[in-house]
Amino acid sequence: MSQQAVNGVPCRGKVLTVDNMNPNVKRVEYAVRGPIVQRAVQIEKELREGVKKPFTEVIKANIGDAHAMGQKPITFLRQVLALCSYPELMEDNKFPEDAKKRAQRILGACGGHSIGAYSASQGIECIRQDVARYIEKRDGGIPSNPDNIYLSTGASDAIVTMLKLLVCGEGRDRTGVMISIPQYPLYSAALADLGAVQISYYLDEEKCWSLDVAELRRALNAARQHCNPRVLCIINPGNPTGQVQSRQCIEDVIRFAKEEHLFLMADEVYQDNVYAEGCKFHSFKKVLFEMGPEYSSTVEMASFHSTSKCYMGECGFRGGYMEVINMDPEVKTQLTKLVSVRLCPPVPGQALLDLVVNPPQPDEPSYATFMKERTAVLSALAEKARLTEQIFNAVPGITCNPVQGAMYTFPRITLPQKAIDKAKEEGKVPDMYYCMRLLEEEGICLVPGSGFGQREGTFHFRLVWLPASLLPPVHIQTSKSFNLMRFYVTTLYCLNPDD
Amino acid sequence: MSQQAVNGVPCRGKVLTVDNMNPNVKRVEYAVRGPIVQRAVQIEKELREGVKKPFTEVIKANIGDAHAMGQKPITFLRQVLALCSYPELMEDNKFPEDAKKRAQRILGACGGHSIGAYSASQGIECIRQDVARYIEKRDGGIPSNPDNIYLSTGASDAIVTMLKLLVCGEGRDRTGVMISIPQYPLYSAALADLGAVQISYYLDEEKCWSLDVAELRRALNAARQHCNPRVLCIINPGNPTGQVQSRQCIEDVIRFAKEEHLFLMADEVYQDNVYAEGCKFHSFKKVLFEMGPEYSSTVEMASFHSTSKCYMGECGFRGGYMEVINMDPEVKTQLTKLVSVRLCPPVPGQALLDLVVNPPQPDEPSYATFMKERTAVLSALAEKARLTEQIFNAVPGITCNPVQGAMYTFPRITLPQKAIDKAKEEGKVPDMYYCMRLLEEEGICLVPGSGFGQREGTFHFRLVWLPASLLPPVHIQTSKSFNLMRFYVTTLYCLNPDD
Repeated sequence: MSQQAVNGVPCRGKVLTVDNMNPNVKRVEYAVRGPIVQRAVQIEKELREGVKKPFTEVIKANIGDAHAMGQKPITFLRQVLALCSYPELMEDNKFPEDAKKRAQRILGACGGHSIGAYSASQGIECIRQDVARYIEKRDGGIPSNPDNIYLSTGASDAIVTMLKLLVCGEGRDRTGVMISIPQYPLYSAALADLGAVQISYYLDEEKCWSLDVAELRRALNAARQHCNPRVLCIINPGNPTGQVQSRQCIEDVIRFAKEEHLFLMADEVYQDNVYAEGCKFHSFKKVLFEMGPEYSSTVEMASFHSTSKCYMGECGFRGGYMEVINMDPEVKTQLTKLVSVRLCPPVPGQALLDLVVNPPQPDEPSYATFMKERTAVLSALAEKARLTEQIFNAVPGITCNPVQGAMYTFPRITLPQKAIDKAKEEGKVPDMYYCMRLLEEEGICLVPGSGFGQREGTFHFRLVWLPASLLPPVHIQTSKSFNLMRFYVTTLYCLNPDD
Repeated sequence: MSQQAVNGVPCRGKVLTVDNMNPNVKRVEYAVRGPIVQRAVQIEKELREGVKKPFTEVIKANIGDAHAMGQKPITFLRQVLALCSYPELMEDNKFPEDAKKRAQRILGACGGHSIGAYSASQGIECIRQDVARYIEKRDGGIPSNPDNIYLSTGASDAIVTMLKLLVCGEGRDRTGVMISIPQYPLYSAALADLGAVQISYYLDEEKCWSLDVAELRRALNAARQHCNPRVLCIINPGNPTGQVQSRQCIEDVIRFAKEEHLFLMADEVYQDNVYAEGCKFHSFKKVLFEMGPEYSSTVEMASFHSTSKCYMGECGFRGGYMEVINMDPEVKTQLTKLVSVRLCPPVPGQALLDLVVNPPQPDEPSYATFMKERTAVLSALAEKARLTEQIFNAVPGITCNPVQGAMYTFPRITLPQKAIDKAKEEGKVPDMYYCMRLLEEEGICLVPGSGFGQREGTFHFRLVWLPASLLPPVHIQTSKSFNLMRFYVTTLYCLNPDD
């Protein structure tokens, strides 16, 4: 139709086509919700329609979505949100007094006492104060200024905004941004969208995915030939690799950032998700300040947190914040202006964040239940982390680093040449071939390592080890209950594709 | 400090400064939350600290933020949100059955039955189905496909995403986007951010801010000299001008878009806010389809709606959607990929949107209260619209077009040369000078016309006529209760700055 002449006027086809759309958008890739996940959704539909499969449900181990995977919301958080949504419940004696007090305080800070009003673009002031107090407490008293806190629509929003501020220049002067490989693909996607240059530095799989400053320097020096490196992004605890950085490593990174005149972005959304013995979360800010004024008064940094992970797992509310440190005041003015265009982050997400940074205290009625629920979630996660590592290392062809933190593991799969050739025949990257088979034959949905980046010739997958059906929440004695057999079968198949 | 040498290494100043930040961000302006609003916030602080002023409160007439200005939330919406937040309330017999049914349906569509789970990036499927049904009903049965619906973080998010898809090319090939003057500054801000070319077409103040195709053509032809015009943006009902477009005008615009091969963006967030007799909201989609297949199967369009305006005014929830029509399927795939990077719009906002498009029905227990509340809000708005126009036209130096829709008026102020000179002395745009005086002396916070654009040599302001303290919700007999005197005094002052 669109190619025919209408009233003698030839139609020119679509105004907007893939050939004339924004080329940066075309370069964006986001594997966590990519083709394998789309196929998983189709398979779920087929199962509902009665199509016979070797399994009865798809286990979605592709995304860190705790509630979708059976984790229950924390009662206190949801009570306060219900009170904020429908303040008539303040009269209801089923709600504890501390929940009411929190809701009243939040509503008092909202225009017209309603979470339906826009907030200040930077976020509600008293919530930013609570965030600053939380950071101070977390970091052993190092001061935090509420004016440096920007509430956001999940951490992703703040990360993209911060990157947007930093990108400038053309050709060899274009801003380069250092990101780890493997990485969380929000970063590569945002850089593609902004037309910035991605500088890849590799984490050391042999050393439990640790970060080595020599590798940072190698990547930086190579990049200086073709762009202007200005930013260093770190994810700690790591996504997709689940490692937790040592204090020493963080110090080295900060020293490197200062020497090389880089803006630091510290993605710390898994700060409560640390499980391995001997591991501890150290915030970049705390280490920065402990290194003395030579560092704490010069190194520019933004750090990010979210309501989506840790023990809350409230992804749907899109709550988050960033703290900026040593940011030029004029740039801050520009940042504040930029975020004002989108008016404000969702207010229910801001309210939720307030409860996370200001949870029930020991003398409050909700404290006991809150702590019990929080501890139960974190213990279950720790147990799953332990089992994940143990079980994977029992599967032939798979090697798995210790799962120190976050909600992921990024095991390596050894695929023989035969399997690699088979994948190539089908026009697939070998790890995509493996993950697709695992999905089609066993109903387990993973994201192939190629979606996060990996060293040439190595193959991995990211597994989110949250799903209850993957690793039941009961205490487990045998590895079989981890649906290990599903991995066995597919892995063996891939090892011997002609059998 | 940062300029000194530390350990013999000279510091190079900040990594990120206004001189080396993203130049597009520097070009972004958003007057609705600009300097005048920042001053208003300061004044509020001064009042709280006991500073004496000629007024006791600041009346914020700068932003369409209904709840902040005293409008009460609709009970049904908030009941369902409370039930979704804290499903334990399902047992509570204080909640009507239809509210529980809605909450259960929404939760059933959420991963793990929790609004804390991520949704599909395009939005929850059953909510997209409800949106499609709402559009079909609104447009007299013209079909709407849920696959063409994208839920969003307020309408702003969807508008920016759509513009981002459309922008490409360099130099004279750079995408040009036609926007009305006066405009809602989200558009100019987004275009600056994307580095697109803004093509201004002027609304006709003499004809009640109507849109004239001859002016569209003038603007388009002029722009073709220096860019590639591809997009035409329309706001109906108008922001900041409050006009409602006639069916004939919409037809003309659609014909123009087809002839000139432009992608249409119809911002229709005020679709329920139509007050003037003889005015009616016509959706661009309905008119497009009534023009026959020659148009309905070729003209590419996106239309936008939000939970922030109309009778709901739930700005803080950041709910919204866009419907795309005749979009190239490959571009749609790119759009879906692009929105997946941010994971999903806030789920509480999606839930709220579901209630807006699927409100209580006549046979349901909440219907009577819902309708009563909805009607009360819309009648109060209609009355305020009428009074605003009537009262402004009684102030010397101010002329005000009929307020047909939305929540704004954009009156013209006649400033004598003396006042204009005085403004220049102070280094201010004359309408900014007027608004700043009105704020300092009377405590009324408006946005100057220059923040929206206006014809050279004319001066305006945008007034949001929602604030209860500006126009009390009681029935009003005298114009004085509209705080008219406050406008008188300042206007007279500006007319005679030497008095």
